[in-house]
Amino acid sequence: MTSAERLPVAVDAMGGDRAPAEIVAGAVRARDELGVPVVLVGRPEELPDTGGLEVIPASEVIAMDADPGKSVRTMKDSSLVRAAEAVRDGRACAMVSAGNTGATMASALLRMKRLPGVGRPAIATPIPNPGTDRTTVLLDAGANAECTPEWLVQFAQMGATYARHRYGIEAPRVGLLSIGEEPTKGTPLVKETHQLLAEGGWAESCGGTFVGNVEGRDIMSPDVDVVVTDGFTGNVVLKTLEGSMRALVNAILGAFGATEETKAAGDALFPALLPLYAQLDPNNTGGAMLLGLNGVCIISHGSSNDTAIVNAVKVATEMVDAGLVGALASTIRPE
Amino acid sequence: MTSAERLPVAVDAMGGDRAPAEIVAGAVRARDELGVPVVLVGRPEELPDTGGLEVIPASEVIAMDADPGKSVRTMKDSSLVRAAEAVRDGRACAMVSAGNTGATMASALLRMKRLPGVGRPAIATPIPNPGTDRTTVLLDAGANAECTPEWLVQFAQMGATYARHRYGIEAPRVGLLSIGEEPTKGTPLVKETHQLLAEGGWAESCGGTFVGNVEGRDIMSPDVDVVVTDGFTGNVVLKTLEGSMRALVNAILGAFGATEETKAAGDALFPALLPLYAQLDPNNTGGAMLLGLNGVCIISHGSSNDTAIVNAVKVATEMVDAGLVGALASTIRPE
Repeated sequence: MTSAERLPVAVDAMGGDRAPAEIVAGAVRARDELGVPVVLVGRPEELPDTGGLEVIPASEVIAMDADPGKSVRTMKDSSLVRAAEAVRDGRACAMVSAGNTGATMASALLRMKRLPGVGRPAIATPIPNPGTDRTTVLLDAGANAECTPEWLVQFAQMGATYARHRYGIEAPRVGLLSIGEEPTKGTPLVKETHQLLAEGGWAESCGGTFVGNVEGRDIMSPDVDVVVTDGFTGNVVLKTLEGSMRALVNAILGAFGATEETKAAGDALFPALLPLYAQLDPNNTGGAMLLGLNGVCIISHGSSNDTAIVNAVKVATEMVDAGLVGALASTIRPE
Repeated sequence: MTSAERLPVAVDAMGGDRAPAEIVAGAVRARDELGVPVVLVGRPEELPDTGGLEVIPASEVIAMDADPGKSVRTMKDSSLVRAAEAVRDGRACAMVSAGNTGATMASALLRMKRLPGVGRPAIATPIPNPGTDRTTVLLDAGANAECTPEWLVQFAQMGATYARHRYGIEAPRVGLLSIGEEPTKGTPLVKETHQLLAEGGWAESCGGTFVGNVEGRDIMSPDVDVVVTDGFTGNVVLKTLEGSMRALVNAILGAFGATEETKAAGDALFPALLPLYAQLDPNNTGGAMLLGLNGVCIISHGSSNDTAIVNAVKVATEMVDAGLVGALASTIRPE
């Protein structure tokens, strides 16, 4: 497919702690480095040099800490709502935002709508496994604080389809996050979901395999590809991982700086540690994806820099090219 | 207090992956190094040299993967049940076990009973903050998969009292684990608990302060001393921390081993990293504590070695000497 035949990826120029400068720089880099069309959405007068990128004007900006539902309902000319409309109206093939996560979800949900049969969309977040080339998909990472067993089964299906398309895993192993391997462990939600997943009918349309309950320590293990949980637990896990990784890395860097000798040793180790550092940098993961909507929506983390936007546009383009949305539709409603 | 005046700490000699050898070795070391009396509970004929420690005989052993409730009800002559009875009957001042966590809780609950007014006991687990001398108390780390707001408020009270007695924190800052700072974020359980904690009446009897909702990334931050959550979320968080720390440490050690040069640099860094490694070794934290019972019960992790048992006996003794159980009783039912 050539650039001329493609629809552009709509990038919310106003969303994120480093917007608009880093976001616009990332969008320009994405076009230049990936050779894909990109359109910005935002206040034209506030944008730095867009390098000739088209801008879909939007006069309002939903703040990072604004109430998602209320903002999206009242700020119809916001960059987030306009970006989602661009996908709905066939002006863009996908949207990317580093803005208010809740408002990104709400905009995408209200404008793109759910795929037929989908109970709730879920946020699928890639969890890199340190020092390996593996990534675990965690969902729901925060879209739905409360879930039903039926929604979790759909998350299992959508997560497996996503893992296949995004990471090329032929038969993704799906685990249910709980507090013990036994089917009797956990909350009523987990126990009921376990039963439904163990019955196995869900797996046919997505090619997944249920490996039973998994625990928090398995999320970064090679034994599971997709970890399913409710959005409360998933978000707590995601933030716990972020916090613990940062705390440990900072403590190690502190130890490196202890003496002249350790400083020199730390310098010698730097090249060997760089790939690990890069792997754990959220700017390099390509962002989380909202699964279950009639369109591709990538949620980039709030402190995204230009590289994060390049990677998010890359993933968006790959998922559009791979026909992920169509695959998710037939995963939930097999033809 | 001299050794002669003390009641011994009852150590379950049969519990844990390395029982009885490492457990008995730890009990002997605890007596010798701490100068406190220790009594073993288990099958006398299966124990290695007890160094003269008294043994309370118990003919049954509850397996690590046995059903907790059923085992405790049917195996009345198990080491766990007998250890809890020793505390109830005034033969021991506290119990320590590295065995089946659920069965340890069930034994302690059934034999020691709850303190008056306590809805449910909670597992309080110390979370070391890497590279600092700080520890965050996380509770409930797995005793109750489902909770009510009222129980969580009691966990806040008991956690604050524990943090004061165990870590000498004068006015412990208590956070409620959620998925955003706003009181409106989270599950109904979290929202209702937030309201109750924000009202503040709970704090008087324990000296705690409510700092609002905290997120997973705050657990290892210096901004909170006690993190309150339900036992499902708490256990997932604990296991996630274990898994992520191990994965990252392994990846770093892998990078250290990349070349001859990095190996040499790694060796040079080893002394500087050793304190961090020791800090994160669960054998050094002293174990988790079951709060809300009429007695001291320390739950040591399943792979406890002798050092873990020494540290668990040390914490048990300190908490007995500090009058923690009495303090918890008046925290829940102020006089």
